[in-house]
Amino acid sequence: MTIRYPNGRKYQPSTQPTGQRKVNHSFGNRGKTLEDELNETNDYYLSQGIAVIHKKPVPIQVVNVNYPARSAAVITEAYFRTPSTTDYNGVWEGKHLDFEAKETKSLTSFPLQNIHDHQVEHMENVHNQGGIAFLLVYFSSLDRYFVVPYEYFKEKWERKIAGGRKSITLGEMEEISIEIPAGFHPRLDYLKAVRILLDRIQKEATERQEIE
Amino acid sequence: MTIRYPNGRKYQPSTQPTGQRKVNHSFGNRGKTLEDELNETNDYYLSQGIAVIHKKPVPIQVVNVNYPARSAAVITEAYFRTPSTTDYNGVWEGKHLDFEAKETKSLTSFPLQNIHDHQVEHMENVHNQGGIAFLLVYFSSLDRYFVVPYEYFKEKWERKIAGGRKSITLGEMEEISIEIPAGFHPRLDYLKAVRILLDRIQKEATERQEIE
Repeated sequence: MTIRYPNGRKYQPSTQPTGQRKVNHSFGNRGKTLEDELNETNDYYLSQGIAVIHKKPVPIQVVNVNYPARSAAVITEAYFRTPSTTDYNGVWEGKHLDFEAKETKSLTSFPLQNIHDHQVEHMENVHNQGGIAFLLVYFSSLDRYFVVPYEYFKEKWERKIAGGRKSITLGEMEEISIEIPAGFHPRLDYLKAVRILLDRIQKEATERQEIE
Repeated sequence: MTIRYPNGRKYQPSTQPTGQRKVNHSFGNRGKTLEDELNETNDYYLSQGIAVIHKKPVPIQVVNVNYPARSAAVITEAYFRTPSTTDYNGVWEGKHLDFEAKETKSLTSFPLQNIHDHQVEHMENVHNQGGIAFLLVYFSSLDRYFVVPYEYFKEKWERKIAGGRKSITLGEMEEISIEIPAGFHPRLDYLKAVRILLDRIQKEATERQEIE
């Protein structure tokens, strides 16, 4: 008999010894972080002339620097700052891309608390300026990746602001986003999903014109 | 009688006391750094919905972090890394912009030693991908700003690689770039120069088509 939690999830007895970090070797990413995956993909895109997309450095406030003779300057006091933009941006076939990558361990929904107000504001600005803004969401326990266009993400964000759900359910995610098809080289070929997305937007615009 | 150096420059007797830092108050920028000027311009563009352009954070390799109880994490050992891309990028009317800003105190030429190989490579990649790549060069002693499109900069860079001049003369600079018209708000309205540039490229392309 399968025991289920009230939310419908199966009960999985833990086989993990206490205090040991859980590394899941059964999935395709073999313990790589989402950032590693994206860096590899972006390196591939660059080397193949497909796109020029980079992760922005983490913003750091430098307070104190030592300059030892004959060696490199050493920063001895500094603090992490909150990023005011998204993590990744670049150019692809003349188009400006801008996105934030987020991971969740949840099996059922993507919590919105990981996204900052000013990141949403930034995506809104990029979108209004004709850039392609999106979220890349990784459900690590399901090993599924989604590209969520800013236009659709915005609705869910505004629902939260209005006092509604603080997350996007997996079902909603499947509806509003394009799942990144599993690939081999590069494994995380997110531009494939972005292209499907653009084709769909283009098609919808054409259909609207035909009706009018 | 005006005494001239062999390069034609006028001899200007120094009125600066030795050891004192030279700050020129007669020019419009009043001691602001080029970065300050650009940040102000980018803030203006953002607030007016004209463009979304940000400076990338300086890349820093973090080696050691302390997490004191009840306070922010303190980075206690870190090092500056060489940037692998340009400093500024963003989106403007659907177009991807990517540029590096450099300053020279020289009155007669812009030395190329300030530009790294991988930055040139990055601009080449951006250009090939349909983005607008350029250098923004500030001759601080002349208080003149130039937007140098990558296509033209490339020729001068390749001349250097081939063993030629290691700089771009002011005369060449005037030829291959668009000077940023002096403005008031924002003072450094570089998109004005970029627009002139795009119009010129468009016009040249049309003329070529008419000849063919």
